[in-house]
Amino acid sequence: MGVSKQVIELYFKQLQDDICVELEALDSAGRFREDLWQRPGGGGGRTRILEGQVIEKGGVNFSAVHGVLPQRIAQVLGVAAVHFFATGVSIVLHPINPYVPIIHANVRYFELEEGTWWFGGGIDLTPHYVEEEDARWFHRQLKAVCDRFDAGYYTRFKEWADNYFYLPHRHETRGVGGIFFDRLGAEAGFDKADRFAFVRAVGEAFCPIYVPLARKHKDRPFAERQRQWQALRRGRYVEFNLVYDKGTRFGLDTQGRTESILMSLPPLAQWKYDYHPPEDSAEAHTLKWLQKGIDWVT
Amino acid sequence: MGVSKQVIELYFKQLQDDICVELEALDSAGRFREDLWQRPGGGGGRTRILEGQVIEKGGVNFSAVHGVLPQRIAQVLGVAAVHFFATGVSIVLHPINPYVPIIHANVRYFELEEGTWWFGGGIDLTPHYVEEEDARWFHRQLKAVCDRFDAGYYTRFKEWADNYFYLPHRHETRGVGGIFFDRLGAEAGFDKADRFAFVRAVGEAFCPIYVPLARKHKDRPFAERQRQWQALRRGRYVEFNLVYDKGTRFGLDTQGRTESILMSLPPLAQWKYDYHPPEDSAEAHTLKWLQKGIDWVT
Repeated sequence: MGVSKQVIELYFKQLQDDICVELEALDSAGRFREDLWQRPGGGGGRTRILEGQVIEKGGVNFSAVHGVLPQRIAQVLGVAAVHFFATGVSIVLHPINPYVPIIHANVRYFELEEGTWWFGGGIDLTPHYVEEEDARWFHRQLKAVCDRFDAGYYTRFKEWADNYFYLPHRHETRGVGGIFFDRLGAEAGFDKADRFAFVRAVGEAFCPIYVPLARKHKDRPFAERQRQWQALRRGRYVEFNLVYDKGTRFGLDTQGRTESILMSLPPLAQWKYDYHPPEDSAEAHTLKWLQKGIDWVT
Repeated sequence: MGVSKQVIELYFKQLQDDICVELEALDSAGRFREDLWQRPGGGGGRTRILEGQVIEKGGVNFSAVHGVLPQRIAQVLGVAAVHFFATGVSIVLHPINPYVPIIHANVRYFELEEGTWWFGGGIDLTPHYVEEEDARWFHRQLKAVCDRFDAGYYTRFKEWADNYFYLPHRHETRGVGGIFFDRLGAEAGFDKADRFAFVRAVGEAFCPIYVPLARKHKDRPFAERQRQWQALRRGRYVEFNLVYDKGTRFGLDTQGRTESILMSLPPLAQWKYDYHPPEDSAEAHTLKWLQKGIDWVT
């Protein structure tokens, strides 16, 4: 054991710093703007927003909050309404070039006064245009990270992401998925140090995964048609985040800092009534990939 | 009594027709596109969408659905899970000119096999730029409609709209409100014919209220700055509809026709991190009006 919440919080802060440095290097023009905020009930955070030339709008947020767990949240979690502590880093990047995918990543730690604790997190990719090769590469990177810790992690967390990042009303996954996990506690022979090591590896995999993908496509020529499609796909991103995403709901329900929570929303989004891309177009091909249960690694 | 569901359904269909005719006259260029759809569980609807030169994207939907009430919905309503019938007309218009307000209106009827029935509905206005004179005129029209039926209706339904069309995470009302009512059944000396007469009056007030407001501003010059602000305010509209609106949630939860439900979303919306309009600007003045409890009629 021996992993205190202070150690985890400090690590997450450092992770935010490191990721911001690498993303500024990727963008080369944009610089992160930082807003420090305090939560009336206890704790606070560092919201960092980049509006650059590669990343149209991106957020890398750190927070560490504590206080009395709201009764309603306690019920949902199935725990007593006691003091809690929660810390994490949350990232959403909306690139300018439609050939560069949207990415989301999150690592988080939750602890209750009476001793319960768990980690959660994940990384998932939402290409406006799905390229099979990229999606396979992305999933293989995630699998390599998972395999260093447990042979069963990737399969389990990939399926979890498929089910979590899903829009039932559209019969579509949000993108090509990735990994998602929650409530990783001291079970199955894993102690807190093991879980923390895994979560660190996920956090540290973010830049080595996203930066090459972004570099590969950031200078690819595009036209108005691709920007239009990007805006429509961003509309789906908005639908997922506002209707289904548990983190967003939790944040809004617990009077979190709205601008930090909703940094995940795209700079611009479009809704066109009953739009269907032309058959056999790149856009139509992308839609075919937006389903659960695709094996990207074998 | 003597008001059957068939009579109400036919009336709502006619109302949809009449409103579409008047909105096409307002737009002068755009024509409604109609999609007929059927609900697998029973019933269906007529979705009509206009993309014109005054209305950038507008929907006037009629539906009449029936079947077995989903268990979860029955619980929320506090009724037994029996056969239900629901019919209504729902309107959302997103104009091109930022000085023309967004409007939403709805009239609906709900009936259970065992005899319970009620009406619901309302009209509310969401100006991108609040003009006090227009908002006062709008509320006075609604009050005049209400006063024909009950001296207490306007006050009660205006307050209901204030509370319903509210974004707690923004500490903002969606717009200048209007009237909202639900579950108007046979209480307080009102029978079904009385309630139906009121709901008809609300439906028939829609065009005489919106068309003059739209005509007043539709040719007013605007620039990129006003369109930007409009896109940001539309972002708030998306937030309300996807996070809080009960009709949207109900529709998505009961596997309604997604494109008909989400016709309420704007053609284009924007999110800018922590944006605050310049002090004393028209945009800043608008924000001051977005609060509950404003008396617009005395």
